[in-house]
Parts: sequence; structure tokens; C-alpha cells
Amino acid sequence: MTVTLHVCITCRAGQPLSEGEITPGARLHSAIFEAGVPENVHVVPVECLSACSHGCSVALSAPGRWSYVYGRLSDANAPDVIAGAAAYAAAPDGIVPWRSRPEIFRKQSLARIPPITILPEAAE
Amino acid sequence: MTVTLHVCITCRAGQPLSEGEITPGARLHSAIFEAGVPENVHVVPVECLSACSHGCSVALSAPGRWSYVYGRLSDANAPDVIAGAAAYAAAPDGIVPWRSRPEIFRKQSLARIPPITILPEAAE
Repeated sequence: MTVTLHVCITCRAGQPLSEGEITPGARLHSAIFEAGVPENVHVVPVECLSACSHGCSVALSAPGRWSYVYGRLSDANAPDVIAGAAAYAAAPDGIVPWRSRPEIFRKQSLARIPPITILPEAAE
Repeated sequence: MTVTLHVCITCRAGQPLSEGEITPGARLHSAIFEAGVPENVHVVPVECLSACSHGCSVALSAPGRWSYVYGRLSDANAPDVIAGAAAYAAAPDGIVPWRSRPEIFRKQSLARIPPITILPEAAE
């Protein structure tokens, strides 16, 4: 299925930034496009994934699936981020076997969130 | 709206665990129920939120809203976790003003993920 890869483009990765300097997050975002994005991965820039102390970070999500957040990334990781996103998109339930995940996804998970369910409203 | 509060019950919070000892995550889960859960917060235990190096952790989510993951929690934080979850449920768009968030939510964010959107499928 088509999945969303959110990339934090405001991330400074804990580094001071000179005026006009491109953020490490924006560099990662560009590198992902340069590396080539598969059709079933929709890359969306986002301002802050609130993982600032472990940036750069990306999030993978899709309806009915677990969401995943990964951190401590740089533009050098773009090809692995794409490989991991493509595997997530290709897995029928979004759960990629552990050994098939890129190393950065195995070792640099910040969090995962179970599928979001629609709940009946509490009585008023 | 009714929101989901996932609580990682397998979390050891980086501590060694004696045989039969209740995990810090399970203690947090129990403390949340003891503190009293509002009707519009649905508490769901989960085995691992993949935030093990920053446990104990919880995740707040609801359809169409940003999801949030918080870490470095203990059972002592249960009342604040509930207060924060209730504020998230009560906010019309799930975005609670910064100052209205409990301190643990302001300072112990592990990540947030934008609302999950349904995307058209890529052409085969």
C-alpha cells in the first residue's frame, strides 16, 4: 500500500546553525529525493517531530498499521531510509521481518505506535 | 473525542528485573487505573513501544490527530499522564496549548507523528 514517510526538515541535529545554513533535516529530505523515492512511498516534510534530542528523524505511517519513528539520522542514511520505507510499504501488514529491516531501523528506533483505532464516543 | 492511551507494560526502564517482579511498565499501567481514567480515554496495554532506552513510555493517539509518545516515566507520573491524556481528548483538534500540558509532556516527548492520511494507491 502507499505509505507516508514524514521527514523533519527543521531538525538541527543538536548542532548550532549559521545564518542561511541548510538544516541537517532539510539535507536529509533532499538526499531522500536524490536517492530516488519509490511510487508507493509518499515523502512529506514536517516541521518538528518532537524528537529534537535524537534528530534527524523520520516517521513511517499508513492507515491501519503500526507507525514507526527513527532518529539519529543524517543525509548519508537516505538510501537506507528509502529501503526501509519501501519494505514497510511492501509488507502486507506493514510489519517487516526484523532481519529485513535496514540496520538504522533496527538500532535507531525512537518509538512505534500501534494502529490507530476509531473508538465509540463516551456518553456525554 | 475518545482517545487511546497506549501504555508499554513490558518496559523494564533499563533496570534488571528479578524473577516474578512486576515490570515498571506494568506498575505504571496499574497506577494509571488506580489514579482514575476519564471516560474519553481508552487505556490499552501494549508490549513494547520500541522506546526501551527511554522507558517507561506511553503513546496518545486518535483518528485524524497528531500522535504523541512520551518517555522516562514512572508510576509516580500516573496522575499527570491522565491529566495530559484528558486534555488531549478535550482539545477539539487534539493540540493542547503548550502551557496547558503537564510538565512531563513538555519535557519528556520522545516523538510526535502527524495525522495519518489515506493516500491513493500508486499505479501498478
